[in-house]
Amino acid sequence: ELVDAVNQLFVEPKLQGQHWVVTAGPTQEAIDPVRYISNHSSGKMGYAIAQAAASLGAKVSLISGPTKLEAPSGCKRISVTSAQDMHQLAMELAPNADVFIACAAVADYRVAQVAEQKIKKHEDAMQINLVKNPDIVADVAALNENRPFTVGFAAETQDVEHYAKGKLQKKKLNLIAANNVAVQGQGFNSDDNALTLYSADETIPLSLATKVELAQQLVKIISDKVSDQK
Amino acid sequence: ELVDAVNQLFVEPKLQGQHWVVTAGPTQEAIDPVRYISNHSSGKMGYAIAQAAASLGAKVSLISGPTKLEAPSGCKRISVTSAQDMHQLAMELAPNADVFIACAAVADYRVAQVAEQKIKKHEDAMQINLVKNPDIVADVAALNENRPFTVGFAAETQDVEHYAKGKLQKKKLNLIAANNVAVQGQGFNSDDNALTLYSADETIPLSLATKVELAQQLVKIISDKVSDQK
Repeated sequence: ELVDAVNQLFVEPKLQGQHWVVTAGPTQEAIDPVRYISNHSSGKMGYAIAQAAASLGAKVSLISGPTKLEAPSGCKRISVTSAQDMHQLAMELAPNADVFIACAAVADYRVAQVAEQKIKKHEDAMQINLVKNPDIVADVAALNENRPFTVGFAAETQDVEHYAKGKLQKKKLNLIAANNVAVQGQGFNSDDNALTLYSADETIPLSLATKVELAQQLVKIISDKVSDQK
Repeated sequence: ELVDAVNQLFVEPKLQGQHWVVTAGPTQEAIDPVRYISNHSSGKMGYAIAQAAASLGAKVSLISGPTKLEAPSGCKRISVTSAQDMHQLAMELAPNADVFIACAAVADYRVAQVAEQKIKKHEDAMQINLVKNPDIVADVAALNENRPFTVGFAAETQDVEHYAKGKLQKKKLNLIAANNVAVQGQGFNSDDNALTLYSADETIPLSLATKVELAQQLVKIISDKVSDQK
């Protein structure tokens, strides 16, 4: 054991020299200066992934929506609010990255016209008109040059495998990590999670564990796949 | 000074025997199991008011939407999510209260039909249909029996005095506390605030201060007005 420990000190960290970009947390889409649309993502999974990659020696850029979390040590956190802001930053950073992991719960839609003043409405009913946000992970995966190994997430409440495999193919991802957020005690806002990873030719279940443990397993699997590609 | 301090020990707390109900924080209106509409209220002002009333000896029920804050000492906090939940609880507690302070930033509208599964939409645009939520402070102020002294808040981004006085009259409040949330460094998510209080015959400006200080001033003014009524 001592020999192992001493050897460890002289082994180059596994991800030394690599740049990983991780997105995390929800996005907030403004309705007016005080109101917004968001979701229950806590950011814990993405932060744990960023931390796990950094602890293996990667340079990590963490693009984070609004969360209550402290920045993980050894990572560069860049805070954003809206999906459009996150998209812009991701497209700047991804071409210089070895790995891009889209763990954020990005709003599919934003408000078509954000009101400059607090909306005054006296009707019994009203409508909010939404337009589609850019698809960040699909745009990264579609890069022609300097495309990183691209990993998506699928948080679903039903037909998890069907939707996850559909996203993997349609968005041309290398890997997708799927979880069922309708199950109590895992996923959004929880400390635990269970994931199933799908690549073009593999299905890898990662059973219920803390998000920190899952992140370490996921980062190891990704780094092995990146090594295999090279 | 020693005499003052000793006297203080034997003086009955000013609000002993009174029950104050305070609402605080935002509400969250579900769109589907993962998405929601909310607002930038931090809950700090309402929590500071609850704390200030409790420290003067009142029994305080704090009805709180989702916030990051610790429950203030000496208060009973009851956590709610939606405006409908907050309304139900307020209507149960208000008839037994001496004072009702509606500091929460309650969503004016909720989603007409909350989806049971995560919404799958592939269109470039979509709409969210909203219906009006009950007006909590107006319903409390309209109580025929056991009506508490009722205080509202108006967070505005323009024409603050106009809207605040309109709400005071229309909702038949005893007092309204107005602030301009468009000013940087006060209001939503800030530790500081500035308020203007309007009653039927008075305008009382409370200049920029910490929310804790403002809450103490506000509680003192309300308790004096309640004493005058008796």
